[in-house]
Amino acid sequence: MLPPKSNFSEWFHEIIQQAEIMDIRYPVKGLYVWFPFGFKIRRLVYDKLREIMDRDHEEVYFPTLIPETELGKESEHIKGFEDEVFWVTHGGLEKLDVKLALRPTSETAMYPMFKLWIRSHADLPLRVYQIVNVFRYETKHTRPLIRLREITSFKEAHTAHRNYEEAEENVRLAVSLYKEFYDFLAIPYLILRRPEWDKFPGADYTIAFDTVMPDGRTMQIGTVHHLADNFAKTFDIKYETPDGDHAYVHQTCYGISERCIAALISIHGDDLGLVLPFEVSPVQIVIIPILYKGKEEEVMDLSKRVYEKLKGYGFRVVLDDTDERPGAKYYKWELKGVPIRIEIGPKEAERNEAVVSFRDEKVKKSLSVEELSKEKILEWAREMKERLKKKAEEEMRAKVRIFSNLEEAKEWIGKGVAVFYFCGDEKCGEEVEEKLSAGILGKFEEIPEWISAEEKGRCVNCGREGFLCAAAKSY
Amino acid sequence: MLPPKSNFSEWFHEIIQQAEIMDIRYPVKGLYVWFPFGFKIRRLVYDKLREIMDRDHEEVYFPTLIPETELGKESEHIKGFEDEVFWVTHGGLEKLDVKLALRPTSETAMYPMFKLWIRSHADLPLRVYQIVNVFRYETKHTRPLIRLREITSFKEAHTAHRNYEEAEENVRLAVSLYKEFYDFLAIPYLILRRPEWDKFPGADYTIAFDTVMPDGRTMQIGTVHHLADNFAKTFDIKYETPDGDHAYVHQTCYGISERCIAALISIHGDDLGLVLPFEVSPVQIVIIPILYKGKEEEVMDLSKRVYEKLKGYGFRVVLDDTDERPGAKYYKWELKGVPIRIEIGPKEAERNEAVVSFRDEKVKKSLSVEELSKEKILEWAREMKERLKKKAEEEMRAKVRIFSNLEEAKEWIGKGVAVFYFCGDEKCGEEVEEKLSAGILGKFEEIPEWISAEEKGRCVNCGREGFLCAAAKSY
Repeated sequence: MLPPKSNFSEWFHEIIQQAEIMDIRYPVKGLYVWFPFGFKIRRLVYDKLREIMDRDHEEVYFPTLIPETELGKESEHIKGFEDEVFWVTHGGLEKLDVKLALRPTSETAMYPMFKLWIRSHADLPLRVYQIVNVFRYETKHTRPLIRLREITSFKEAHTAHRNYEEAEENVRLAVSLYKEFYDFLAIPYLILRRPEWDKFPGADYTIAFDTVMPDGRTMQIGTVHHLADNFAKTFDIKYETPDGDHAYVHQTCYGISERCIAALISIHGDDLGLVLPFEVSPVQIVIIPILYKGKEEEVMDLSKRVYEKLKGYGFRVVLDDTDERPGAKYYKWELKGVPIRIEIGPKEAERNEAVVSFRDEKVKKSLSVEELSKEKILEWAREMKERLKKKAEEEMRAKVRIFSNLEEAKEWIGKGVAVFYFCGDEKCGEEVEEKLSAGILGKFEEIPEWISAEEKGRCVNCGREGFLCAAAKSY
Repeated sequence: MLPPKSNFSEWFHEIIQQAEIMDIRYPVKGLYVWFPFGFKIRRLVYDKLREIMDRDHEEVYFPTLIPETELGKESEHIKGFEDEVFWVTHGGLEKLDVKLALRPTSETAMYPMFKLWIRSHADLPLRVYQIVNVFRYETKHTRPLIRLREITSFKEAHTAHRNYEEAEENVRLAVSLYKEFYDFLAIPYLILRRPEWDKFPGADYTIAFDTVMPDGRTMQIGTVHHLADNFAKTFDIKYETPDGDHAYVHQTCYGISERCIAALISIHGDDLGLVLPFEVSPVQIVIIPILYKGKEEEVMDLSKRVYEKLKGYGFRVVLDDTDERPGAKYYKWELKGVPIRIEIGPKEAERNEAVVSFRDEKVKKSLSVEELSKEKILEWAREMKERLKKKAEEEMRAKVRIFSNLEEAKEWIGKGVAVFYFCGDEKCGEEVEEKLSAGILGKFEEIPEWISAEEKGRCVNCGREGFLCAAAKSY
C-alpha cells in the first residue's frame, strides 16, 4: 500500500520502489538503479525528447572525462562547479598526470572542439545535443530522479551563433521546444528568468522551467542559458564573417534531466499509484478477464480476440491471464499507471462487449467490441491527456498566489509559490530570501494569462521599481 | 583523398575523420568525439541491436560508479581488471571514504542487486541488458572505435538461471542473437571458444566472435560468457527451488561494443570511403541533378519530384542541390557510403527517367521514374546486402588457412588467420604463441562449412589429441 499523496515525500519515496521505477538499494549514496519498468518510461519519454530535438539539432557524443586544465579555464564556470565535481586521479595503480573530472555538464568538453569545428559564418548556427550521464558530488539529501550523484539521463544541447541576437533567437527556440515537450507530458510550468546570483556559472542569463510539486515546493525541470561570448572568449571560438573579419561566436546551452520523469510521476500520480499519459505508458491497455465457473472459455476467447485486435493496431497491450483475483490485478495495474483498462466477464462475452475505464476517472462504460477501433482509443488517449493537463494546471494555479507584503508571502511559502514585485537587486534579494526562508526563482519571462498582474510594480521589500517575480522552497 | 585501403592502418585513421565518424582531436588520450554523422550510424546500428535484445531481455540502467568493496569481491574478476580501472578518489575538495571505480563492465554493480531481485525459481530466467559507457585505462596504443579509454556504446547483457544447463542454453541463445546482428550488418565472423587462460575473468568459459580485418589481424567483436555459479557464490545469489530448497543461480553475460561500427567501416569500406548497408546508412539515397544551361528547370523539377516520392516512402534521401560540380558531389557521397545514387540530367528529365547506381558496383542503369517503387528500392537494398556479404565472406575465407606445422603458420600470420590442431594445454599454448608471435584465439565453437577439416586431430606442437583452433595477431 502507498501512503496517501498528501504525505508527498513518503509517497514519492514509496512509489519509486513499488511501481518499480528505481531500486534505491544500490550501495552508494545518491546512485540508483533503473528497473526495467522505469526504464521503459524513460525510453518512451526520451524518444519524444529526441524526436523534438532532432528537428533542429544533431545528436553527438563527447567524452565523459574532462581534463582539469579545460574544466578550469572559464573562471565563473569552475567556481560554480568545483565543490561538486568527482575527480578521477588514478588509472589502474598509476597516478594520472592530469586529473580528470567526471563531466558535471559538457561545456568544457565540447567547446575546445567547437573551436576546431567552426571556421566560417557558413558553419553557423551549430546546434548539437547529447543524452548522457553526468555527475555531481551532492552533499545535500539525495533523492531518486531529483537529486542524484549520477544524473543518468541528461539531455544537453549546445549551440553557436553569429551574434548575441541570433543566440537570443535560439533561446526562444529552445524555450518553445521545452514547452512542447512538457505540454506533451501534460506537465505545467512557470517560465522564470533566474536572478543574477542564481544564473548558470558562466552564463549571461538563465531561463528556467519550474513546476510546482504536490507539496508546494517548486522543482526546476529545464534550463536555457544565453552564454553570450563568455565561453567563446575563453575557448577562442571565432568565425570568419562574410566580410572576412573574425568574430567570437555567441552561444547558448539548455538541459533537461530525469527530473522530467520525477515531475511526470509526481504531478499526475494519485493515492493508487502512477497515472501515465497514453503515449509514455509502457503498458497502454490492460485487459482483465473476469472468470466465472462454466464461462471461462467464452470469456478467455473474447479477451484474446480483443487482445489480438488492439495489438494489431500497434498498442502496448497486456492480457492479464494470471491466477490472481481481479481485485489484485486492478491494484497492480493501477499502481503501474496503465491508462486504459478493459474488463471482460461472462455478460460481456455473451454480448460481445467490453467494459472500459480510465486510470484517472471512476467512470466505467460498456461498448461493443466493434466500437474498440484504433481511432476510438486514440481519441480516449487525447481526452485523458486533456483531463490530466487541466487537473495539473488547476492544481498548480491553486498553489501560486500574489502577495504585496512579505509576511503574508512567508506564511504561504511551504504551501506554494509566492508572487510579488521585486527590484532585482542582489542585496535586496538577500533580505527577501532571508525574510521568506525561501529562494527567489526570478522574474516571469512569460506571465501566464491566469496571473492577472502587471509586469512591473513597486518592490515588496525596498519600494523601488521591480518586476513580477516568484519565490518558493525548491527541490 | 583517402590512402588506399591496402594500407589499412592509415586508411582507417583517415576515414574515421574524413567521413566524419569521430573527431580524434579531443585533448585526452584514448577519448574521442562522435561527430553527428558517425553518431547517426551508431543510432541506426544500436536501434537494431536493441530490437534484437528486446525480444528476450529487458533494458535497465545501473550506476557507473562501483565501490571498491564490491569490485574486489570476486578474486579472479578483480585480478583481471585491477590494472585497467579508473578510480574516483575525490568529490569536490573532499577525499571519498570508499574509492569508486568507473565501471569497466557491470557484473559487480549488478549482481549485489540481483541478490535482492531473485527470490524464487519463478523469478528465473532473469535477462537484462544496458547500453552504457564503460572505462578502461588502456596503456596500449589507443584507436578510435577499437581500443578506447571510454567505450561509449557497450551493450552488456546479464542473465540468471536455475542451473548450469539452462545457463548454457542461454549461451546458445546469445550466440544466435549475435549471429543475427552481424548477419544484418553483413559482417562475417569466426565463433571460437577462448582458451582457458584467455577467458573472461571469473567465467567458466568464453565464446568470442572474431572478424578478420583487411590487414589479416582479427578483431573480437562480441563475447558470450558462461559464468556458472562463480559470481552467484561471491554475491550470494540464491533462489528457492520448487521443492523449497535454496540453490545458487547460474549466470551468463555477453557484450558488444562500438567495435561493431569499426568492423562495419573496415570490412565494407573501399578506397573511396565508406560502403554502408542500406538499413544503417544515415543517407540511403542521394539524388544528384546534372544541370546544363537552359535545362536547369526541367532537371530540378524532376529531381524534386523523385525526392518527394522517395521521401514519401520513408527513406532517408538527400537532394544535393548545392553549387558544387557533380564530380565533387560523387566524391562526397561516396566517402559517406551512401548505398544508392540517382543522377538526373537533361536527357533523363526529357524521358522521365533516372540513372541509378550502387555504392559497391560500377554499373549504372537507367529506368523510368515510375519504376522507382518502394519495393524496387528495398529489393536493391537486399541485393546490395547480399553482394556485401558475399564479398566480405570471400575476403575472410581467403585469409583463413589450415596448417599442419607451425613454421608455415608463422609465415602466414600477419596476412591472416592460421588454423591448426591444438591440445588446449596452457604450457603447450605458451610455446605455440611464442613460436607464432601471435595469440591462440581458441577452438572452433562452430566449424564453418567452408573449412574442410575434422573437429579433432593431433596437436601441431605436442602431438597429443587436440581440437581445431585458430591463431592470429589481433586488435
